[in-house]
Amino acid sequence: MTRTLGVAVIGAGYWGPNLARNFQYSPDWRLEAICDLDLDRASALAARLGGVRVTASLDDVLADPAIDAVAIATPARTHHPIAMAAIAAGKHVVVEKPIADGTQRAREMVAAADAAGLVLMTDHTYCYTPAVLKMRELIAEGHLGDILYIDSVRINLGIIQPDVDVFWDLAPHDLSIMDFLLPGGLVPESVTAVGADPLSAGKACIGYLSMMFPGGAIGHAHVNWLSPTKIRQLVIGGSRRTVVWDDLSPQQRVSVYDRGVDLDIQALDGIDRASALISYRLGDTWSPALQEREALAAMVDEFAEAITTGRPPRTDGQSGLRVLSVLEAASQSLQTGTAQERLNAYAGEPR
Amino acid sequence: MTRTLGVAVIGAGYWGPNLARNFQYSPDWRLEAICDLDLDRASALAARLGGVRVTASLDDVLADPAIDAVAIATPARTHHPIAMAAIAAGKHVVVEKPIADGTQRAREMVAAADAAGLVLMTDHTYCYTPAVLKMRELIAEGHLGDILYIDSVRINLGIIQPDVDVFWDLAPHDLSIMDFLLPGGLVPESVTAVGADPLSAGKACIGYLSMMFPGGAIGHAHVNWLSPTKIRQLVIGGSRRTVVWDDLSPQQRVSVYDRGVDLDIQALDGIDRASALISYRLGDTWSPALQEREALAAMVDEFAEAITTGRPPRTDGQSGLRVLSVLEAASQSLQTGTAQERLNAYAGEPR
Amino acid sequence: MTRTLGVAVIGAGYWGPNLARNFQYSPDWRLEAICDLDLDRASALAARLGGVRVTASLDDVLADPAIDAVAIATPARTHHPIAMAAIAAGKHVVVEKPIADGTQRAREMVAAADAAGLVLMTDHTYCYTPAVLKMRELIAEGHLGDILYIDSVRINLGIIQPDVDVFWDLAPHDLSIMDFLLPGGLVPESVTAVGADPLSAGKACIGYLSMMFPGGAIGHAHVNWLSPTKIRQLVIGGSRRTVVWDDLSPQQRVSVYDRGVDLDIQALDGIDRASALISYRLGDTWSPALQEREALAAMVDEFAEAITTGRPPRTDGQSGLRVLSVLEAASQSLQTGTAQERLNAYAGEPR
Amino acid sequence: MTRTLGVAVIGAGYWGPNLARNFQYSPDWRLEAICDLDLDRASALAARLGGVRVTASLDDVLADPAIDAVAIATPARTHHPIAMAAIAAGKHVVVEKPIADGTQRAREMVAAADAAGLVLMTDHTYCYTPAVLKMRELIAEGHLGDILYIDSVRINLGIIQPDVDVFWDLAPHDLSIMDFLLPGGLVPESVTAVGADPLSAGKACIGYLSMMFPGGAIGHAHVNWLSPTKIRQLVIGGSRRTVVWDDLSPQQRVSVYDRGVDLDIQALDGIDRASALISYRLGDTWSPALQEREALAAMVDEFAEAITTGRPPRTDGQSGLRVLSVLEAASQSLQTGTAQERLNAYAGEPR
Repeated sequence: MTRTLGVAVIGAGYWGPNLARNFQYSPDWRLEAICDLDLDRASALAARLGGVRVTASLDDVLADPAIDAVAIATPARTHHPIAMAAIAAGKHVVVEKPIADGTQRAREMVAAADAAGLVLMTDHTYCYTPAVLKMRELIAEGHLGDILYIDSVRINLGIIQPDVDVFWDLAPHDLSIMDFLLPGGLVPESVTAVGADPLSAGKACIGYLSMMFPGGAIGHAHVNWLSPTKIRQLVIGGSRRTVVWDDLSPQQRVSVYDRGVDLDIQALDGIDRASALISYRLGDTWSPALQEREALAAMVDEFAEAITTGRPPRTDGQSGLRVLSVLEAASQSLQTGTAQERLNAYAGEPR
Repeated sequence: MTRTLGVAVIGAGYWGPNLARNFQYSPDWRLEAICDLDLDRASALAARLGGVRVTASLDDVLADPAIDAVAIATPARTHHPIAMAAIAAGKHVVVEKPIADGTQRAREMVAAADAAGLVLMTDHTYCYTPAVLKMRELIAEGHLGDILYIDSVRINLGIIQPDVDVFWDLAPHDLSIMDFLLPGGLVPESVTAVGADPLSAGKACIGYLSMMFPGGAIGHAHVNWLSPTKIRQLVIGGSRRTVVWDDLSPQQRVSVYDRGVDLDIQALDGIDRASALISYRLGDTWSPALQEREALAAMVDEFAEAITTGRPPRTDGQSGLRVLSVLEAASQSLQTGTAQERLNAYAGEPR
Repeated sequence: MTRTLGVAVIGAGYWGPNLARNFQYSPDWRLEAICDLDLDRASALAARLGGVRVTASLDDVLADPAIDAVAIATPARTHHPIAMAAIAAGKHVVVEKPIADGTQRAREMVAAADAAGLVLMTDHTYCYTPAVLKMRELIAEGHLGDILYIDSVRINLGIIQPDVDVFWDLAPHDLSIMDFLLPGGLVPESVTAVGADPLSAGKACIGYLSMMFPGGAIGHAHVNWLSPTKIRQLVIGGSRRTVVWDDLSPQQRVSVYDRGVDLDIQALDGIDRASALISYRLGDTWSPALQEREALAAMVDEFAEAITTGRPPRTDGQSGLRVLSVLEAASQSLQTGTAQERLNAYAGEPR
Repeated sequence: MTRTLGVAVIGAGYWGPNLARNFQYSPDWRLEAICDLDLDRASALAARLGGVRVTASLDDVLADPAIDAVAIATPARTHHPIAMAAIAAGKHVVVEKPIADGTQRAREMVAAADAAGLVLMTDHTYCYTPAVLKMRELIAEGHLGDILYIDSVRINLGIIQPDVDVFWDLAPHDLSIMDFLLPGGLVPESVTAVGADPLSAGKACIGYLSMMFPGGAIGHAHVNWLSPTKIRQLVIGGSRRTVVWDDLSPQQRVSVYDRGVDLDIQALDGIDRASALISYRLGDTWSPALQEREALAAMVDEFAEAITTGRPPRTDGQSGLRVLSVLEAASQSLQTGTAQERLNAYAGEPR
């Protein structure tokens, strides 16, 4: 069908097959090619999907007029050269997280796509889960009021990665979700990271990352490779309501609590702020039904719609840049032992 | 009976009645007097306990030879003068947390009691709960191996206190428990605190407190007055096993997980620390039965036994001083936005 | 105040003190006397409540014109003679469960109170908990639709009672709640009980009680003294929604599930009932906030209001009779090993 | 390799593909053929497994000397003729549950296999899950002591089956597990079933099934298609310990409670059985680690080992017959409304 878009998946390793499968089964897309230096790996994937073309040559892919977009699922250090070449060839790009291996190179990618009028999207898959989409909707509709805090816990027995610490391994999930949920995106005024390496593995295996937001709100992520219990929980405290997302609870994943603390701000002028002015709401709890849908299917839909309509995707290059900026600031805070002031001019722009 | 010890309770406000009741029902103690400037309050308490003597005069209490010890449950700023007077009068002392309103004054109290050969105890009540006593036993017997991390969460809708922030309100519980459990007591090398006041209440209502310990272990406490869900959970990760204490779970409060990560340290000399050298244990989980006993009853037992045998109580003045030192360091970190190096010479001594 | 009602509590054993305390603290009631053959026990209770009159003579109580009502908390076999004497003396009566030790005697009590125009109430305390009151409201307002099933589980390590089996010890709670919630009260068409005594204790320690209701709904109670885990859970399946009450869950005691099975009844006429005609709703879940209030305080309010207004109390003598009838039918089913048809003429009347 | 066994899978519908896959990946087996009247369905399955032979002719399969055994995954009413033909042809047989559509025909199958010296196995897949295997081991080693009760709950929103009621749809799982765990197999003295059809679907959608075992123990299964919450829980109460299996709990599937009631039986001779003679144990709880393995892989291993060694498989034809006998007795109890005495001569023999 002439209206569908052609796509090539670059990289057939861990994540590429998931991307390829979702492009293949989407009515919006034609999966045109799988590109990997390891042709055997590419061919095995193509066979499972019913015979897509395979190639080891990125140039072939970029020269193919039937290909409108590329999905990059290669190691982080190669994201920048592949994406820049693709943009130069006029292809739309979706790229795995982290968007690049440094904020400077990420900014170049964002600028190049902007200049060429092409879509640059970051594959923040978690943002397209039914739970996160529902939370974004609740926030957008004002159900939570002002956001006071976001607290995320992501702990489990995890593989100690050879190349990255626990912040870079796990926190991108938490940060990309926060970026997606916060009305202005993830633009903290300061970042503080504390980490520990109690097994002498050569990198932080336990980490605590705090962010102070304009207006006084706080964000926090606890990431841990050494926990025998598995927890994936996000709490968003709002001035009106609070939402708790327990990603491992089978039946009630998102719960909205109509409880909280009310401070009578007007009454406080000129007098001591006393506990007598606080009131507590103990209201109902509510768990919205969530549709069951694979997040990656929603992500490839979003990519197609951004290309077709010309609007930015909900997880665009700027969101990838904002997440990367916080990770870099966290690493710097970890090294220096101080809160790391972030300069917004250097980071991603607010949404 | 001549072997029992005489005690007076100073302060009949919030906590004094609990102390008085437990002294009254203990076979080790004779409750001799209740002392409070508000004689009506003291008399009401005495009546409920069957007619104990009441007085508004601390001097009367300290002059009474039938009184061997005093329990101080007055505001924190009065702990130092009352305790110093009691020690000068030859009385043993147990004092509410925090032990004093500053580390300098706490050190004077510790030094005075030492010089006089008297017991100075801090009433860290949580340490005497069956769950914490069991965890201390597990650690002492080597079940957990080396401690890698302690993570504590204590969140709930709480009253915004007029005089203290959320750290000083809630974290003393977590810190006193960590002090009790860590083999050398709570002597971190550095303390980092991050807090937020998103309601503009004039003080931190949400707090994250990190401590780096010698050898690479980390401690962390999350305290929050604004959470609609109530969580009180402590995780102690060890090199051999990990224990999880869920204080609100009715049936399985303490669970020991025989799971974890093994790093083959010997094999790592001179080579790259690779994930291939890591192995995972997925062993059994075990929840020891806990006896039901009021913590404060065990605390007054401990006070009597320390006096009778001459050994230091398990939560002595030094432990109160160590907890206070961390709280002060946290406040300083909060103000300066930096990790606060703690000098051990200024803090409590390790156990 | 002249409008308050005078009450005497008969029996100062296990439950009497709770009744006396709630009458004492209610603005609707004057606690006039405590009556018990054991005067020491009565006096001790009176002292704790501030000096109420005590007596060992029921006649004194019944002759006192200041006493409008009596609350009977004596052994079950004495309920009938005390209540009949009280009614004869013109007193309103509230009586502990079971209302009597046999349905014939219970019917006499109901008839006598009716004839005298006096209130006869059964103290089904559980019905006055905030959770059960909320469920009754949800049902009355049509939130659940038609009731399809009620399933109750009440299991725990329990004391093996010397005089009654597990059905008579625990099931009155479940049955009185079902009687309170079912629109017509607890009037099953048949009762089937299966019990086991695997420890040879001389009576059933594990029991399963089933009831078939007119229209096809089913009720079931699982009671068990030998379970190491404690469960108290009630599920009410409705044609529109289903409610789950977990009495031990600290935070979400009552949850309403907007999920279920829809059968297109019209479409089934004359054709095979096929699975294609079934549809599933997977809607939201909702937990209403419950006010915290002692159930017994609400019960004594209800007693006062029934007397003052002349309307029957929500747990009247008929409800006590209906519960008793099911327990007797269960015992008979247990003995004969058959489903026990219940004749409504012999049981309590529907509400 | 000459030692492997050849097998054909009969039926390529819902369950056949799972059987075929596990035979294909087992080192003990050669998957020789897939047999289905629908050759397209058989061919599609064969293609996914790499080109196994397909046929629509059972005669071809039975005539093939390379085929040692057949796995029957066809509708229940065809189990008997296919199994009898296979046995006549000298093939070992594993058959889906229920083993046949009537006990008489199941007994013929058992007798024929016995006479021919062939293995007849029932595919009670749940029995080969790591959790059930561990519970069987705990019982065999005496950890639980005598079994006092088994209580199983299996409820969920389920499809209302066109041909069977909720007992025949869900209870085979519970009954086959109980048969596997009880030392003598599932040989109750009586069976009582109560069911309800509150939606007028034409068959029971909610069911309660009770079984009295020799010696006083009881078994109970609650099955329900209309529950909005999903529960799969089995409790086995023993005289020494109790085990709880929560099939949906991600982390602690099997928990052993060292708690219970001790009745001093000796002391009870000739005297009243009083509560004073009961003591309670409140011991530790323990959750054994379970290996992760697909149950069906363990099932095909067991089939091979039974054939090779000549011992009966752990879920043999007799176990299928015992489960079927209880289901038939339940249906009869449901119709007559009475407890159904079971005659062991008609049912499967005890293990």
